[in-house]
Amino acid sequence: MSEQLIIFDTTLRDGEQSPGASMTKDEKLRIARQLERLKVDVIEAGFAASSNGDFESVKAIADHIKDSTVCSLARANDRDIARAAEALKGANRARIHTFIATSALHMEKKLRMTPEQVLEQAKQSVRFARNLVQDIEFSPEDGYRSDVDFLCRVLETVIKEGATTLNIPDTVGYAVPELYGHFIRTLRERIPNSDKAIWSVHCHNDLGMAVANSLAGVKIGGARQVECTINGLGERAGNCSLEEIVMAVRTRRDYFGLDVAIDTTQIVPASRMVSQTTGFVVQPNKAVVGANAFAHASGIHQDGVLKARDTYEIMRAEDVGWSANKIVLGKLSGRNAFKQRLQELGIEMASEAEINTAFAKFKELADRKAEIFDEDILALASDESVTAEKEQYGFVSLAQRSETGERPHASVVFTVDGKELRGDSDGNGPVDASLKAIEQHVKSGAELLLYSVNAITSGSTESQGEVTVRLQHGGRVVNGVGADPDIVVASAKAYLSALNKLHSKADRVAAQG
Amino acid sequence: MSEQLIIFDTTLRDGEQSPGASMTKDEKLRIARQLERLKVDVIEAGFAASSNGDFESVKAIADHIKDSTVCSLARANDRDIARAAEALKGANRARIHTFIATSALHMEKKLRMTPEQVLEQAKQSVRFARNLVQDIEFSPEDGYRSDVDFLCRVLETVIKEGATTLNIPDTVGYAVPELYGHFIRTLRERIPNSDKAIWSVHCHNDLGMAVANSLAGVKIGGARQVECTINGLGERAGNCSLEEIVMAVRTRRDYFGLDVAIDTTQIVPASRMVSQTTGFVVQPNKAVVGANAFAHASGIHQDGVLKARDTYEIMRAEDVGWSANKIVLGKLSGRNAFKQRLQELGIEMASEAEINTAFAKFKELADRKAEIFDEDILALASDESVTAEKEQYGFVSLAQRSETGERPHASVVFTVDGKELRGDSDGNGPVDASLKAIEQHVKSGAELLLYSVNAITSGSTESQGEVTVRLQHGGRVVNGVGADPDIVVASAKAYLSALNKLHSKADRVAAQG
Repeated sequence: MSEQLIIFDTTLRDGEQSPGASMTKDEKLRIARQLERLKVDVIEAGFAASSNGDFESVKAIADHIKDSTVCSLARANDRDIARAAEALKGANRARIHTFIATSALHMEKKLRMTPEQVLEQAKQSVRFARNLVQDIEFSPEDGYRSDVDFLCRVLETVIKEGATTLNIPDTVGYAVPELYGHFIRTLRERIPNSDKAIWSVHCHNDLGMAVANSLAGVKIGGARQVECTINGLGERAGNCSLEEIVMAVRTRRDYFGLDVAIDTTQIVPASRMVSQTTGFVVQPNKAVVGANAFAHASGIHQDGVLKARDTYEIMRAEDVGWSANKIVLGKLSGRNAFKQRLQELGIEMASEAEINTAFAKFKELADRKAEIFDEDILALASDESVTAEKEQYGFVSLAQRSETGERPHASVVFTVDGKELRGDSDGNGPVDASLKAIEQHVKSGAELLLYSVNAITSGSTESQGEVTVRLQHGGRVVNGVGADPDIVVASAKAYLSALNKLHSKADRVAAQG
Repeated sequence: MSEQLIIFDTTLRDGEQSPGASMTKDEKLRIARQLERLKVDVIEAGFAASSNGDFESVKAIADHIKDSTVCSLARANDRDIARAAEALKGANRARIHTFIATSALHMEKKLRMTPEQVLEQAKQSVRFARNLVQDIEFSPEDGYRSDVDFLCRVLETVIKEGATTLNIPDTVGYAVPELYGHFIRTLRERIPNSDKAIWSVHCHNDLGMAVANSLAGVKIGGARQVECTINGLGERAGNCSLEEIVMAVRTRRDYFGLDVAIDTTQIVPASRMVSQTTGFVVQPNKAVVGANAFAHASGIHQDGVLKARDTYEIMRAEDVGWSANKIVLGKLSGRNAFKQRLQELGIEMASEAEINTAFAKFKELADRKAEIFDEDILALASDESVTAEKEQYGFVSLAQRSETGERPHASVVFTVDGKELRGDSDGNGPVDASLKAIEQHVKSGAELLLYSVNAITSGSTESQGEVTVRLQHGGRVVNGVGADPDIVVASAKAYLSALNKLHSKADRVAAQG
């Protein structure tokens, strides 16, 4: 039997730090369930001390996830660590991931601490954490740019205090594979008790090398845990992609000689769920999960593939969960079939009343669209008005028209704290008019950063349109998502959903990269 | 002075092979001009023998581009090579890039040739090409999976025949950095005349390692040319990204010790142009050119960046051409200002009549939108009805309405070969109704593969919407793009543009990866 490579997913923590990718508790729980189906070893569920909202998310995931270890990030102080332990109480397997910066630049400019103070704080924090939880991960932030001698002292100390995993982040995405691999190897060789812990890599993709750097950390450095995210989500250019790491290790097992526990057929469903939830599109030429990743356009390639599949294919689309769209439900499907499908898709509704609301929406959609795909159901469930979270704004109805030579016009009826209001406005287009009709009453002062539409299912113009609206106000960025066969309606729903998030999200302290 | 790394851009050849990324001659020429501004060393303009359309594109680029070498792909046969040389006649510096597969799998299954036949054909082709053009590149297709002994014989032979660049493709994206780097090193060490040619790398991103593999080919293998594309466009998961390679070599000059001639401030404009032209979105978490690549969300990071920029930044956004949107033109701008801006943006209009049409559209847009950005002008120019290519279908006007509880309805007036027609239809939404109104007369039988909308400029709901429609019919895939502040109108324009492309594009033989 080969050694195992531990897959540590941080979509819900480092991924969520992407501007605009913040998620609600329900959304995070839904993604955590999908990560469990994917058989991820460790789910970093959040940063419990950063906000009450994140505490609740970590707690909900710890309470519901049974197979994967659930982890919370915590700065290297007692308050953060106690808060993480509190949130993780219900977990089958809990891990606390504590960190402090160790590079000269970060210690001096950001922390304003001496190296000795940092060393002491790392030591005390791991000691404190180890009294609360068995499984402790320690990260020296900006580790790759830290002085090796100092880093060795810190890491040796935290291993003595009981840290079980040591993670070496390339926080700014500056590494190249050869150097990063040898850096980790050097640390492991120089630290006398290095074999008492599992070594981990955490790479960012600023120079496009997160996957190769991580794998060099594994192959050259001997790391046995990789930190990664679905779709490579994460701050700036994002983190190492889970799907690329996993498929590289699988496809080049001849070279890496390691096993991963991942159920690869759950990769594409996970990718879609994260993309739909955050509104972050996956580009067509994204490895493994992009729409074109398994498409062959040129005549020569098509010919080759027909003659012998492996002339141009090193992976099979079905192995990563690409399959023809399945018609799952239609007009005649009953409530039980619908409920079962929700469960299979990992969508948890809080009450029977919610299921009824969702089912009514489903029937309404089925009246307009003959074939209902999984994507439609996911969109319907992510439509905020279905979920239990209390909302300030709700969509009721919309009428709009545009005609060449005249100014587009829209009327939108919506609720504010349960009270119905009607806004009327013209605009540059029907979408502009609809959003202005809403703003007539709301006067949010929010700035629109992004507006995009994707047809959820292809193959027909009857598809639902899924609209993502990103708003910025008072330093906060939120995404709203809305789905409807009418994209003007979807736009209004997305806008109201974003306004709800702007209204409900508390400011939070966020974390390291 | 350091050695130079040659940047060979194949956006217009391998990039265009992405299903749905095919471009018109005008679009290719516009991108070639941007690549020249970017100071790319070599532009692979197409595959002249693959179709008359591609021949004309290569010829137009060869005739217009002065600073970069212009290259055409050609299979290893006299007809292809002669056709490439013919298309390149007008070039200041011309290169022929000829290829033949050398892996056992490809020779046996695809070419059905013996190794000796392949060797002989490679030899004869390079000899023939060298009589037409001085600058000859040779690629053993699927080179990385080829038998080393055989590959050495082939490469030694083609160098003797005068090949000046040897390119080793990882055609299927199977390589890992260490192995690929050493593979190239082995070839260079074993081939006696290897120093007579420049070595080149060509990597695909199926396992997310195209950039790292290419750089290992440079660092370990001694290659001095990298083949890459803007946005990593290319078949399946795409090619090595130009922007990532260039910024990695620049940012880690301490490690690579090489110079590149690229004007990095032209990277983001090039990325936008390719994305807008092909309709292939760039995901927000794409390195260097993604919308979030330089964004810092978390409180800790923002704090760090404020205290000392290099705590979290290894590149500067302005160095790669990110800058605040510039208001370039408005309602009061005259025809000369508009014409000058077109020139600055590299948009060539065939006649004064065309400029007049574009200017009329610009004034119409300026009436509805106070601030006109570069993106708006690019969209306006890529709006097919402005350009000279003869079109079967043209947009005239549209009226549509939708109201909750009623079925959306649209009337579209458009021209077919100059004759005006009006279609009426209802649909699931106003976009669906509009496309159905067009199909009422056209009856194309095309399948809609993709529908997406991006707001071209952010910061306001008055933005133009840019709609991309991807259609498939009879084995061909085309993209249509349309822009308008009214997204229903933009959708109808995009649909008509896609129908025009379906109608005009000849089938073509496409090439290796």
